Amino acid sequence: MRALVLFSGGLDSTVLAAKMKNEADETRLLSIDYGQRHAKELDHSKIVAQQMDLPHQILYLPQLGDILGGSSLTDNNVALPEGHYAEESMKSTVVPNRNMILLALAGGHALSLSYDTIAYAAHAGDHTIYPDCRPEFANAMDTVLGLADWENLSLYRPFVSLSKADLVTLGHDLKAPLDLTWSCYAGRELHCGKCGTCVERKEAFALAKIPDPTKYED
Amino acid sequence: MRALVLFSGGLDSTVLAAKMKNEADETRLLSIDYGQRHAKELDHSKIVAQQMDLPHQILYLPQLGDILGGSSLTDNNVALPEGHYAEESMKSTVVPNRNMILLALAGGHALSLSYDTIAYAAHAGDHTIYPDCRPEFANAMDTVLGLADWENLSLYRPFVSLSKADLVTLGHDLKAPLDLTWSCYAGRELHCGKCGTCVERKEAFALAKIPDPTKYED
Repeated sequence: MRALVLFSGGLDSTVLAAKMKNEADETRLLSIDYGQRHAKELDHSKIVAQQMDLPHQILYLPQLGDILGGSSLTDNNVALPEGHYAEESMKSTVVPNRNMILLALAGGHALSLSYDTIAYAAHAGDHTIYPDCRPEFANAMDTVLGLADWENLSLYRPFVSLSKADLVTLGHDLKAPLDLTWSCYAGRELHCGKCGTCVERKEAFALAKIPDPTKYED
Repeated sequence: MRALVLFSGGLDSTVLAAKMKNEADETRLLSIDYGQRHAKELDHSKIVAQQMDLPHQILYLPQLGDILGGSSLTDNNVALPEGHYAEESMKSTVVPNRNMILLALAGGHALSLSYDTIAYAAHAGDHTIYPDCRPEFANAMDTVLGLADWENLSLYRPFVSLSKADLVTLGHDLKAPLDLTWSCYAGRELHCGKCGTCVERKEAFALAKIPDPTKYED
């Protein structure tokens, strides 16, 4: 297996990178700047990739914000909600069709490298809010990626039935550098501790009963 | 129906734009610069959109060439083949996963506009060379676009069983400005008359028995 990991520098895709490094014949990482407010995760993607000694490319596409307006994740005019990740209010953080765009770009990059697999870290905790994290979406993407070229290309999504706490446990077992990962949507110096992904991150370490190495503002 | 047309300024998508202008409640056009050698088609997309009096946006993403290397359509180091569009040699013009990338971007734009339809001009003549023009690819894209959001989004692809000559006939009947469209991959002042799409374009007008308004170099 030659696997391209869609890699944000966050906890989930870092655990996935560690898993692929163990399992695949070759592993590379691709990060994409789609104009997200928390561009800080891209800085962390470099640090994590370096620490894991994996080849890593960042594609800068800040112009995407121009056609995907109205999400609190890309538009500074829309307030970022606080609270739990799975709440209704978090719907403002949906970037329209984000995951299809990222997976399509990863597909093109994988094909140009003659890679056969895209690895994707969507997990069970994402489904409530993000339609493009549902297993049925991932299954349909696997089908369409297999038809996009004369060569076969698969979407590997080993986490679709796992919780974020399961990923913390797995990452801990794999010695993934969880302390270097970035989750916070606010993108300040430290994790804010209040936005949806911070609340979810804290909860996952607590449920996994693994000490949380993250420094929060509060 | 509120339809976003994936629009290159070429013949096929201009005929589609004319058809949607007749059929849909609202029609908008989206063009995408993915670093193609024939960026001239983008200039023509503006001219055609203006002539048809349809709202039009261009998304400039020339950085895509960085991750999609090796196609003669985006890489000036790879020679552009001459001959018929359906020949084996034309495979060097395949941009890896191009259509999924373009459709995914169109999907995000459509959702942010609350549009329900993406219109896509892939036709039967494209299938031999381009895997991502096959009907099975378009069907799978329709499925995945329907799952990408809580709102439904469809892929309308009325030309998948039509030949390019059929499109010339339809465009002529709809009074689409075929004379303003651009096909040539070489992207010089006039259509070169020798590259795959020029040969295909000439042939389509001849088969449709409609005078070809195009000025060729030869």
